[in-house]
Amino acid sequence: MNTGDVTIAGVGNTPFTGGTDSTLVDLAAAAATDALSDADIDGDEVNSLHVGNMLAESTNRRAGLANALASALGLEAIRATRIENTSASGASAVHHGVESISSGRSETALVVGVEQMTSRGVAEVTDAISRLVHEREYEQGLTLPAFAGLAADAYLNRHGADRESLARVAVKNHRNAVENSIAQYRETVAVEDVLDSPLVASPLRLYDCCPMSNGAAALVLDSDCGDVAVTAVASATGTHAVAERRDPLEVESVRVAGKRAFDAAGCRPKSIDVACVHDAFTILEWLELEELGFYDNGTAWRATVDGETAVDGALPVNPGGGLKARGHPLGATGVAQLVELVWQLRGDVSPSRRVDGARRGLAVNVAGFGNNSVCTVLET
Amino acid sequence: MNTGDVTIAGVGNTPFTGGTDSTLVDLAAAAATDALSDADIDGDEVNSLHVGNMLAESTNRRAGLANALASALGLEAIRATRIENTSASGASAVHHGVESISSGRSETALVVGVEQMTSRGVAEVTDAISRLVHEREYEQGLTLPAFAGLAADAYLNRHGADRESLARVAVKNHRNAVENSIAQYRETVAVEDVLDSPLVASPLRLYDCCPMSNGAAALVLDSDCGDVAVTAVASATGTHAVAERRDPLEVESVRVAGKRAFDAAGCRPKSIDVACVHDAFTILEWLELEELGFYDNGTAWRATVDGETAVDGALPVNPGGGLKARGHPLGATGVAQLVELVWQLRGDVSPSRRVDGARRGLAVNVAGFGNNSVCTVLET
Repeated sequence: MNTGDVTIAGVGNTPFTGGTDSTLVDLAAAAATDALSDADIDGDEVNSLHVGNMLAESTNRRAGLANALASALGLEAIRATRIENTSASGASAVHHGVESISSGRSETALVVGVEQMTSRGVAEVTDAISRLVHEREYEQGLTLPAFAGLAADAYLNRHGADRESLARVAVKNHRNAVENSIAQYRETVAVEDVLDSPLVASPLRLYDCCPMSNGAAALVLDSDCGDVAVTAVASATGTHAVAERRDPLEVESVRVAGKRAFDAAGCRPKSIDVACVHDAFTILEWLELEELGFYDNGTAWRATVDGETAVDGALPVNPGGGLKARGHPLGATGVAQLVELVWQLRGDVSPSRRVDGARRGLAVNVAGFGNNSVCTVLET
Repeated sequence: MNTGDVTIAGVGNTPFTGGTDSTLVDLAAAAATDALSDADIDGDEVNSLHVGNMLAESTNRRAGLANALASALGLEAIRATRIENTSASGASAVHHGVESISSGRSETALVVGVEQMTSRGVAEVTDAISRLVHEREYEQGLTLPAFAGLAADAYLNRHGADRESLARVAVKNHRNAVENSIAQYRETVAVEDVLDSPLVASPLRLYDCCPMSNGAAALVLDSDCGDVAVTAVASATGTHAVAERRDPLEVESVRVAGKRAFDAAGCRPKSIDVACVHDAFTILEWLELEELGFYDNGTAWRATVDGETAVDGALPVNPGGGLKARGHPLGATGVAQLVELVWQLRGDVSPSRRVDGARRGLAVNVAGFGNNSVCTVLET
């Protein structure tokens, strides 16, 4: 599924925050306006609007988000839809936008990912998110942090990694976020900070987990005029019930989506210069890097310890801070990962977190605990 | 936006009902299984799953519906997403499915529209639906029945139509549903029944309004092997706030989506043999028929009175009973309209409601009160 000629002509990203008075539509409109401005394109040149969002109707009590956003942006008589794929809603919206262009039905598509998670209480949003796992698992009280805790425990035991090495994922991603102006947490944390933070799901602690976030990110996709090419986008579901998977450390959807994306882009893990992976929990960064073929099974933890995934390492991972420190406004994340890659490929980031000479980037956006994944490859 | 070679290879439609013990996933899986069987295609031949649904996360408390459905159907490692466009979610999912095929990225796509509206109380689902209008209008208490009542009042006064003529839309659609085995209401109603039914929003009464429904409909789209061609699918938003529209009787989104669809299909209203329009309220059938160019402004009511839109008339409209009598499970409706057209084009309906010799059909699926519309043309 090579995308033919689909390029990214402009990007926008609101600050990701832990609280805001802005509405869902305000946030989305701000990112979209910035992306259109960056692309130097007027709204009336846009053929379709693809909005990635998870919680509009539950947490935000807003239906018809795509129509409200089209109206706020003054996009008259545009084609507009919302795409929902839980925490991979953003990249799924990109997938649909890319397809719209490669089918010849849109010349220019606007993709906006947005989430406003703090408009209701924490219990309500937590419950809404918990319902994305298999129904039986939800009924048994199995939530995403629980799955991540079980996976972390299994990984550390099976592969002889120590708890400190896992903390180093958070330490790295927090460090990367310091100079990212849109990141939610721009402070460094030390290994001890992670290990001393409150326990969430053993062995994972608070600083192993992404936060609740608000924010939006946007891309202008175009059939030819952008400076970054989308050379692949591919999606795959995994076995829905985690309990039915062959191995709790496998994230089949990431493996399959990754393989499809590498095949479409005609490249291999070795030719990727920078990667944004879905580190909703520190352990996921390792599992995904292994499933994508960047590291052999059971060895990604050593790469973290050895600094290979740092900005100046062999494979910089999450140079924007990842979900961990940039924040994770669910539907916005998959788009924000691509915004970060575009900034890196343009060299348009501060030197402390710049991946020098990056020409090819990969992002993986994961729904739930590997229930569905979308992998995208960008090149300049 | 001609669709190139996209065909419908199979269809499925569960009974539409006012109550059921089936879950959202059960309903969707049943329609999908029937469509795959009708197409004589195994699930492993399907490349992508596009689920149209509005209320999963609010009324049904279910997130990640597309992943749950892929799992229930045993579609392994498939690409799956949910498309939400309020009451036009079904046709919007079709639009994305068609695009996936015409881009060359899918050979076979499964589109499922589904809604389960009765799992919570009426007040909760009514509130969720009410939130699809402009935020300010919601705050002022303007709901879809209110807009429809205002439009009906304006239409009757402006064009000299009488209240009985409007009731005849419901009478016709109920009559058409009698022999439709999946319809929610299979009883005829008389003009007096409509006029004696409880007042909802003057002048509209209960029998002018579609019901709350549960059900699912599915299509298998294929690049070549189907017996019905999708010759056009086009979408457009309208002015979001009804109060800001030039004329309360205009449904701009239907007009624009219709024009785009006619242009893409290379045909005109006169060449359409059968139409399924979005009669969520009786008045909408007239407004949409006029916006689509089937009748001049202010004359569709006469066509109803003269029997032109009856099954044996010059332009049979809603031969399956429409939203009025077939039922309106929101996300399912846009897909069910196309299932009905496929049945008509195949001649696969009982004689009392068959449009003899139909070769070309049109459907329009409307989000909200014209906030977004999708128009599709099928040919055999």
